Amino acid sequence: MTDTKPHGEGGRSALAREASELLQDSRHGVLCTLLPEGGEPFGSVVDVLPLPDGDAVVLLSRLAEHRSNLDADPRASLLLGPAIGAEDVLTQPRVTLVGRANRVEDRAEHRDAYLEAHPGASAFIDFDDFEFYRLRAERMRYIAGFGRMGWIPRDLLTATDPE
Amino acid sequence: MTDTKPHGEGGRSALAREASELLQDSRHGVLCTLLPEGGEPFGSVVDVLPLPDGDAVVLLSRLAEHRSNLDADPRASLLLGPAIGAEDVLTQPRVTLVGRANRVEDRAEHRDAYLEAHPGASAFIDFDDFEFYRLRAERMRYIAGFGRMGWIPRDLLTATDPE
Repeated sequence: MTDTKPHGEGGRSALAREASELLQDSRHGVLCTLLPEGGEPFGSVVDVLPLPDGDAVVLLSRLAEHRSNLDADPRASLLLGPAIGAEDVLTQPRVTLVGRANRVEDRAEHRDAYLEAHPGASAFIDFDDFEFYRLRAERMRYIAGFGRMGWIPRDLLTATDPE
Repeated sequence: MTDTKPHGEGGRSALAREASELLQDSRHGVLCTLLPEGGEPFGSVVDVLPLPDGDAVVLLSRLAEHRSNLDADPRASLLLGPAIGAEDVLTQPRVTLVGRANRVEDRAEHRDAYLEAHPGASAFIDFDDFEFYRLRAERMRYIAGFGRMGWIPRDLLTATDPE
């Protein structure tokens, strides 16, 4: 169960490519933030918009716990996968994007792409108390299945193979 | 969207009771731990055995990231719910148990109950590199759905109503 190498012959390995595809296919996940008082890691569910460079955008209400956590400390991760929480989850691929999530100043930047991914958000996306936060991925932990996994650096996380 | 009170007339409110039932019904979830180097919160999927007092037990491999995280810092949370990662997750109930997870010295203590909850674990439960960790719940964040949520203290998390 040692890590599989994320670099293979001629650029990205299959592992890095799969991780990137899983990220790009994801629309929901679990955001982990830090509770300000005790510093405990805190998991909560979110809708997700993946970006081509390997970052991810979430839309957070000012009233939500995870948002005040991020405003106090931007360190965060995002767990994504088709079967998170399901019975067979331990045999299914999943990724954890690790980095820092900061508020996006210009809401228009992600509005259209977010609505395309999450049409139901049209009911609240323009409310003043919702803002986009962008998780800048520093690295990603990808688990393809039993015994096949690895840490993947940021430059291998883009949606298309880097030149 | 202000918090709903976890105490109601005559003891536990419906909110605390629902949170406890959701915990007791859960068998899978997302564990959040802290990465030792950067201190980022790290989410990963786990199988779960809920205990009647509101704690939860997980079985972790020595080779897994989350276990070395816990050995360095026991602060953790566990996100549970029937639809984590699913399309309609934002409208479904979910709970986040927050506390500290430490290794259980006597593996026999949870072995039978864990196997009953997770029969497939018989393939590896007796391997030397697997150990139980018990998350002692200090409090729990319960989100019943839109606008109905609250922090629930430990003494309201037991499986049966306290006297």
